[in-house]
Amino acid sequence: MIRVGIIGGTGYTGVELLRLLAGHPEVEIAAITSRTKAGMLVSELFPNLRGHVDLPFAEPDPARLASQCDVIFFATPHGVAMDLVPALLARNTRVIDLSADFRLTDPAVWAQWYGRPHAAPELLAEAVYGLPELNREAICQARLIACPGCYPTAVQLGFLPLLEKGLVDPGRLIADAKSGVSGAGRKAVMGSLLCEASENFKAYNVSGHRHLPEIVQGLRQVSHSPVGLTFVPHLTPMIRGIHATLYAQLQQESDLQILYEQHYVETPFVDVLPSGSYPETRSVRGSNMCRLAIHRPPGGNTVIVLSVTDNLVKGAAGQAIQNMNLMFGLTETAGLTHIAVIP
Amino acid sequence: MIRVGIIGGTGYTGVELLRLLAGHPEVEIAAITSRTKAGMLVSELFPNLRGHVDLPFAEPDPARLASQCDVIFFATPHGVAMDLVPALLARNTRVIDLSADFRLTDPAVWAQWYGRPHAAPELLAEAVYGLPELNREAICQARLIACPGCYPTAVQLGFLPLLEKGLVDPGRLIADAKSGVSGAGRKAVMGSLLCEASENFKAYNVSGHRHLPEIVQGLRQVSHSPVGLTFVPHLTPMIRGIHATLYAQLQQESDLQILYEQHYVETPFVDVLPSGSYPETRSVRGSNMCRLAIHRPPGGNTVIVLSVTDNLVKGAAGQAIQNMNLMFGLTETAGLTHIAVIP
Amino acid sequence: MIRVGIIGGTGYTGVELLRLLAGHPEVEIAAITSRTKAGMLVSELFPNLRGHVDLPFAEPDPARLASQCDVIFFATPHGVAMDLVPALLARNTRVIDLSADFRLTDPAVWAQWYGRPHAAPELLAEAVYGLPELNREAICQARLIACPGCYPTAVQLGFLPLLEKGLVDPGRLIADAKSGVSGAGRKAVMGSLLCEASENFKAYNVSGHRHLPEIVQGLRQVSHSPVGLTFVPHLTPMIRGIHATLYAQLQQESDLQILYEQHYVETPFVDVLPSGSYPETRSVRGSNMCRLAIHRPPGGNTVIVLSVTDNLVKGAAGQAIQNMNLMFGLTETAGLTHIAVIP
Amino acid sequence: MIRVGIIGGTGYTGVELLRLLAGHPEVEIAAITSRTKAGMLVSELFPNLRGHVDLPFAEPDPARLASQCDVIFFATPHGVAMDLVPALLARNTRVIDLSADFRLTDPAVWAQWYGRPHAAPELLAEAVYGLPELNREAICQARLIACPGCYPTAVQLGFLPLLEKGLVDPGRLIADAKSGVSGAGRKAVMGSLLCEASENFKAYNVSGHRHLPEIVQGLRQVSHSPVGLTFVPHLTPMIRGIHATLYAQLQQESDLQILYEQHYVETPFVDVLPSGSYPETRSVRGSNMCRLAIHRPPGGNTVIVLSVTDNLVKGAAGQAIQNMNLMFGLTETAGLTHIAVIP
Repeated sequence: MIRVGIIGGTGYTGVELLRLLAGHPEVEIAAITSRTKAGMLVSELFPNLRGHVDLPFAEPDPARLASQCDVIFFATPHGVAMDLVPALLARNTRVIDLSADFRLTDPAVWAQWYGRPHAAPELLAEAVYGLPELNREAICQARLIACPGCYPTAVQLGFLPLLEKGLVDPGRLIADAKSGVSGAGRKAVMGSLLCEASENFKAYNVSGHRHLPEIVQGLRQVSHSPVGLTFVPHLTPMIRGIHATLYAQLQQESDLQILYEQHYVETPFVDVLPSGSYPETRSVRGSNMCRLAIHRPPGGNTVIVLSVTDNLVKGAAGQAIQNMNLMFGLTETAGLTHIAVIP
Repeated sequence: MIRVGIIGGTGYTGVELLRLLAGHPEVEIAAITSRTKAGMLVSELFPNLRGHVDLPFAEPDPARLASQCDVIFFATPHGVAMDLVPALLARNTRVIDLSADFRLTDPAVWAQWYGRPHAAPELLAEAVYGLPELNREAICQARLIACPGCYPTAVQLGFLPLLEKGLVDPGRLIADAKSGVSGAGRKAVMGSLLCEASENFKAYNVSGHRHLPEIVQGLRQVSHSPVGLTFVPHLTPMIRGIHATLYAQLQQESDLQILYEQHYVETPFVDVLPSGSYPETRSVRGSNMCRLAIHRPPGGNTVIVLSVTDNLVKGAAGQAIQNMNLMFGLTETAGLTHIAVIP
Repeated sequence: MIRVGIIGGTGYTGVELLRLLAGHPEVEIAAITSRTKAGMLVSELFPNLRGHVDLPFAEPDPARLASQCDVIFFATPHGVAMDLVPALLARNTRVIDLSADFRLTDPAVWAQWYGRPHAAPELLAEAVYGLPELNREAICQARLIACPGCYPTAVQLGFLPLLEKGLVDPGRLIADAKSGVSGAGRKAVMGSLLCEASENFKAYNVSGHRHLPEIVQGLRQVSHSPVGLTFVPHLTPMIRGIHATLYAQLQQESDLQILYEQHYVETPFVDVLPSGSYPETRSVRGSNMCRLAIHRPPGGNTVIVLSVTDNLVKGAAGQAIQNMNLMFGLTETAGLTHIAVIP
Repeated sequence: MIRVGIIGGTGYTGVELLRLLAGHPEVEIAAITSRTKAGMLVSELFPNLRGHVDLPFAEPDPARLASQCDVIFFATPHGVAMDLVPALLARNTRVIDLSADFRLTDPAVWAQWYGRPHAAPELLAEAVYGLPELNREAICQARLIACPGCYPTAVQLGFLPLLEKGLVDPGRLIADAKSGVSGAGRKAVMGSLLCEASENFKAYNVSGHRHLPEIVQGLRQVSHSPVGLTFVPHLTPMIRGIHATLYAQLQQESDLQILYEQHYVETPFVDVLPSGSYPETRSVRGSNMCRLAIHRPPGGNTVIVLSVTDNLVKGAAGQAIQNMNLMFGLTETAGLTHIAVIP
């Protein structure tokens, strides 16, 4: 059994890690921490876990965690993991960071988008960007995983086949992305209130969302020339789900349906729908799947890719566990076979 | 492996049976029928099942089903099962009926509430009412199970300990129940449209809901004197969940918290919350749990029991599988250990 | 034109007052205050008011407000109005308080439920409880109005005819009430987040909600004997609306439909629906109406009254303006003729 | 007083016309028709209208309607108005058609998209496309108005200033549009059920929505060269509201904020928000406003216009009344001054 610890367990990513890990056949949850809730039973905060997780929240103590755990998940806001990771790695505990701390490889870019210097720049080169569909081999060898953000997962999985084959102009990409409110985290902020966010729809952060440089960095890895991306995120009146509507300009025609089906033929968590389909966010709710559909409307040379994920699963906790499975040589799908809940 | 068949698989109860049975370690789904969708892949109608259930819908053919299956679930509207069950039982196939056909023991009462004579009155005495917390032993021996309705499950589990002990006046019970819209089924009717049912709340069927005689019949089984129940169902703007707020008049004081905890100490799917708690419907969403809390406000002699279930799981498909587990000697919780999805 | 001021304009009650007053034919909005938003345009916080209300929020200054305004609305949390009202009344400015400060006539009861001594107990006798359907004449003469809470409005309008006629046992009343999330106000608290409150239903404050003594006090005004009320509020996944399901035990039979229709024949904002109806909360969304239906199920002696209001209109801002109309001799319905928005 | 009639009053557009017209100071509602509900009181179907509209639904009888009414609104599915309009115009009754029958000027294009020949092609040249911000003068003289569709209104108002000035490449426009479920009408179809459409998000009709040719036709009217538009509609889990996210490629730089403010300086129902704003659909809920914001992210030459409307008001019933006001020489805003309901 792999002994896992979770640092920062009171958010939506934390409870989702617990839901998934509690049912994982090869995992023992050894510790979960929270400064603010230390001493409280996890199941008191999240009653769905009653009878499944009997741990209390503990104060975060890196030395104790390192001794208790084979791997630590960080489900913290950005800026926390980079302070604690070096000590954990030094004690041979592996780390899967769900925050943004190790996603960008260039510390200057990180500092620009997150407003402070990076605390562990020497680890940025070692950290592996945890998108298994892109970096499977490196993940299998990694000590430190930087889990992708929720938008970057949905957007990259949608664009990758087109860019890798050089079929579209990488300088003119558009990602019109819609996220459920849980993407904003479990924080008492006005904009996330039911009375503000339900029966409402709006864009935000058009001038620059922190996921933009992450997406561009990922796409550049497979693209043959510089990437220009317009990224517009929107807040959608639902709890879970991301729907990315991706637009690109074809430079040459090709059978895109076959391209996508072949590209993802061996990835268990990307499902290319039949031609003409419309993926629904609910079809992946609570599951680790990403579902894609490719559309080529008549006239012009625009290709449209529709990509849906559950932002808390494939966009966060599920993908983190998928990475863990690969790092520890388990079956990639272990503990991640949940079927989406419909309706 | 137990070979199961589902008759009537296109509704919400059907897809929920499939979600749960596809992950059941002791079950093989042998057949699923639908007259209207025969030939279509199940996963085409319910894309969450892609990769998990590869069957097509088949025409219902009792003889073939009986040969293919050890047990048949009926997820049909009322009036269908009672025509087909005798033939299935005659071929030694067991039946778990999720519809209302075998819930009422008196054929005259059934005819009064369902507007036609019962087609198999000779089976009403044999049919076991499938509330395991009430009838566990009979269920273990049964050939034919009548699964309780969604409201009756939540209401009975809340009232049973009080009535069994004779602590409250059974003639003055009130059940103010609230259900998500999925309780109305997957039917294209005006009142279930998002634009009619969301951002809205209303009562319905105050003058007589079909679940009223079923609840009264169940409570009478443990009550020491006749049962008088006022039952008011309400339509709530959410997909899943039942919240029953139950009112009774105490005839003698007692430690109700201890009473409930002891009553349900050995039932894996009833969770009595600590004193002062408020069960949330989302704490059981997608799971087979019923969570209860008992409140005794100061002044007067009213006791309030709060009872929540997922109407499609403990109120339908999950309870049906719980019955199957008991009938076939499996662990009661087999295939039913899902943790509720929060948020 | 009546010059009105609003103290505490940044909450949901404040923006609703502005929406309604901006269209009132006899009103000029002279001032609106907010400590935290002083200097910001009201329409910057609430973009629906762009082009309709051009005022900025001002610092609250009672002397200036008194000179600018004929009447002041308090849309503040409890505890604010009682400090400021004496000075305003002393300058001959009338006051309509939407908070709880002047609702309870007994300062000891107020102190018990609100956890501190009342700051202006000498005004409690003068303050008129602003339920026009109960206190119309006193309201017309009042200097200081205590607007009823949202639950108390819906519950009292439903019970009043029964109690006034002595038809039911006043000692055994039950009010099972459901409210939209806006009843919790525009406050960044965890429990009001979309991800916590949508797709969820729960009871709260069963052991004692602050509206309980207010309702009991109001019902006692018309009841012939002491009132015993069990009051269970529930949080409902929608923005606006209250649905109160009221249970009482009849002591004598009577034509209740005629009773209610006659009782409310001259009240413009209470609409008794035809026999057999189910009032929907959306039928009053954005409007000042209360709609009622009376049900008398067969068997037993329970009568059920269903009462719906918009908690922000008839339960708050609309009722406050209805009071203002009466105080200033205007048509009772002036500025309050909005039709509910369906769908 | 203008005497108006409504043909097809049982849908969401019909009830919205009634809500707005019932409060219009210059209008008398003379008749409303419905074949299926003839004889039923309008307020029985839509209880929000109780006390405001006392008419019953009548059988549609063009001759009687023509004699009773100065203007007829068609709130019918496409294909109805084109059969009845000629007779109404012949009797000097003006017509405002909210359906699609007279929106496309080319009968061949109409036949291609609606699957049958047009029944009154001779009127297509006379019909005025009722987008007042584009065609004000022609509307003032019109006998027959073709009200724009909901998507076309939001999309055209967003693109028009850019195209008129020739600032962007008209051949590479993208409209990523999101609509509430009421856009699908008041029809009992599976996809509009709360259990199917809430907590879910999906695209639809990517290969060709009927609003595409209408938008292209409108944009071509002001564009200096052929229009190429990619239009992707999405179903959003809310009742009302359209959010169009529009992408265009700038051919020359310009102060776009000033451009838009000047373009719409005299149009009462288009509100250009301050630079950097994000319009919310709820800021126009229940109102006839369209709110726009222009964004110019750094890098590249993409301009993004955000455009929100209420699909049932500015996208249907409100715009129809705005047209009526212009046709009859009334103030353009008469009866349309509602403030959006927030929250």
